[in-house]
Amino acid sequence: MKTYLECIPCFFQQALKTARLISHDPDLHERIMRELLQKLSGIDLNQPPPAMGRIVYETVRQLSGNPDPYQHIKKKFNHFLMELYPEFQQKILAADHPFDAAVRLAIAGNIIDFGVNADITPDVISETLNQAVSQPLAGSIEDFEQAVRNAKNILYLGDNAGEIVFDRLLLEQLPLEKITYAVRGNPIINDITMEDARDTGITDLVRVIDNGSDAPGTLLDHCSDTFKAAFTAADIIISKGQGNYESLSDADKEILFIFMVKCPVVAKNSGYPQKSIVLIHQKPA
Amino acid sequence: MKTYLECIPCFFQQALKTARLISHDPDLHERIMRELLQKLSGIDLNQPPPAMGRIVYETVRQLSGNPDPYQHIKKKFNHFLMELYPEFQQKILAADHPFDAAVRLAIAGNIIDFGVNADITPDVISETLNQAVSQPLAGSIEDFEQAVRNAKNILYLGDNAGEIVFDRLLLEQLPLEKITYAVRGNPIINDITMEDARDTGITDLVRVIDNGSDAPGTLLDHCSDTFKAAFTAADIIISKGQGNYESLSDADKEILFIFMVKCPVVAKNSGYPQKSIVLIHQKPA
Repeated sequence: MKTYLECIPCFFQQALKTARLISHDPDLHERIMRELLQKLSGIDLNQPPPAMGRIVYETVRQLSGNPDPYQHIKKKFNHFLMELYPEFQQKILAADHPFDAAVRLAIAGNIIDFGVNADITPDVISETLNQAVSQPLAGSIEDFEQAVRNAKNILYLGDNAGEIVFDRLLLEQLPLEKITYAVRGNPIINDITMEDARDTGITDLVRVIDNGSDAPGTLLDHCSDTFKAAFTAADIIISKGQGNYESLSDADKEILFIFMVKCPVVAKNSGYPQKSIVLIHQKPA
Repeated sequence: MKTYLECIPCFFQQALKTARLISHDPDLHERIMRELLQKLSGIDLNQPPPAMGRIVYETVRQLSGNPDPYQHIKKKFNHFLMELYPEFQQKILAADHPFDAAVRLAIAGNIIDFGVNADITPDVISETLNQAVSQPLAGSIEDFEQAVRNAKNILYLGDNAGEIVFDRLLLEQLPLEKITYAVRGNPIINDITMEDARDTGITDLVRVIDNGSDAPGTLLDHCSDTFKAAFTAADIIISKGQGNYESLSDADKEILFIFMVKCPVVAKNSGYPQKSIVLIHQKPA
């Protein structure tokens, strides 16, 4: 999808929140905002929103000298959700349809996104997850299961720290030998990197690669050759989260998008209302 | 008060809402946003927010060729509130303290502000006004009444269309012969101009002047000599609304600010929570 004009004020809000998260220096906050005003005036709106996000967070990192503003938050949420992991593993195993429960939890876990909601708390997460199992889901889990069963080579694109624990719970319901799990190449917001995959035991379950990029999504032009080869080789992609949907909704590839709709722009583009948990099966042209 | 960094995303939201209000052309919307990204990168944040607002709406006017995007909305709300005028006049006259009731309604009427809330409806207005009479008010109405009684020459700075009807109801409780009422010099958002003062009968009650400026507030440097002379000659200013507060909160002048706190930045600056109705008596140094 392209970048909507609504994304402009949203990215300024994100930049300011991040600047204030990592520094109390108002001069630095102002420098970041001014630099972005200049940089964004020439942006290509035909690119997806993560292309703008990449520039925004790169500017914050460059001007602040902080290479990973959300590091402690990622650690905190990975830790918090790893503590809940055994409880949710039991819930999934005890469910009538463990695969169904695992998919729903993986999508609902996608609420843990600081780019969209910087004020999210563990309470909100717990509540959302507990609602998720009974919440209506747009899309067919049977179709998802069938597509996964037919595939030989699956690339699973992860999204955020914390929710990665639910990727693990879903992976445990999938044919592990077919799967490659991908993380971002460099820190960006609270998106997962290799460190998060290690911290949550994903590296012990499946092959994990990074995509070589610092975008909060999957901008193929910015990804490494290794990642692009894995993307091409996969006969199906499981794409988690808004950022990956925003980047790949126009890709000529079979993709199972699973995400929570968290902003009005993605609601407009996908046709699903905000807070929906959705599963979109995109087929190549 | 100065412009806060939070004002930047807010002004982009305002620009986009206004652009879409007056045109369905996405290319025009994009040109407006890009032009603003460039113009705002060099802005002086020590100026109050209405200085940025002035640039934002001037850009919308210039690029769209529409000199008054909110004209029909101003007419609509003036008309709607003039229909309610007899009812509220009765309420004020029947109140235990008519002056108190008139001040409260004038402040609550300040909710009619499209710069802050473009989606406001007549229902929201009615509800807010009816709550206003019993809502706690920060500040002393007795002190307000005393200050008005002691003054010889009062300049009343109006704010928005629609709520101007409540200015009229408050004016009816004030010593009319002492009062000059000021409107903006040119259309800006839904702020009042001479036309609104005429449409609501204010011109028949008191002397009305315009301030010569197209800012959504009172930027003295941008005002006409006539207005500045009236400002200097007044021994007290009654200043209605956030925009006038934002512009004059650092002025070395006796000012009675009456407004509803409608955004987090004014809440931070004034020390009152959002949705408060406040009366601040500012004394010269």
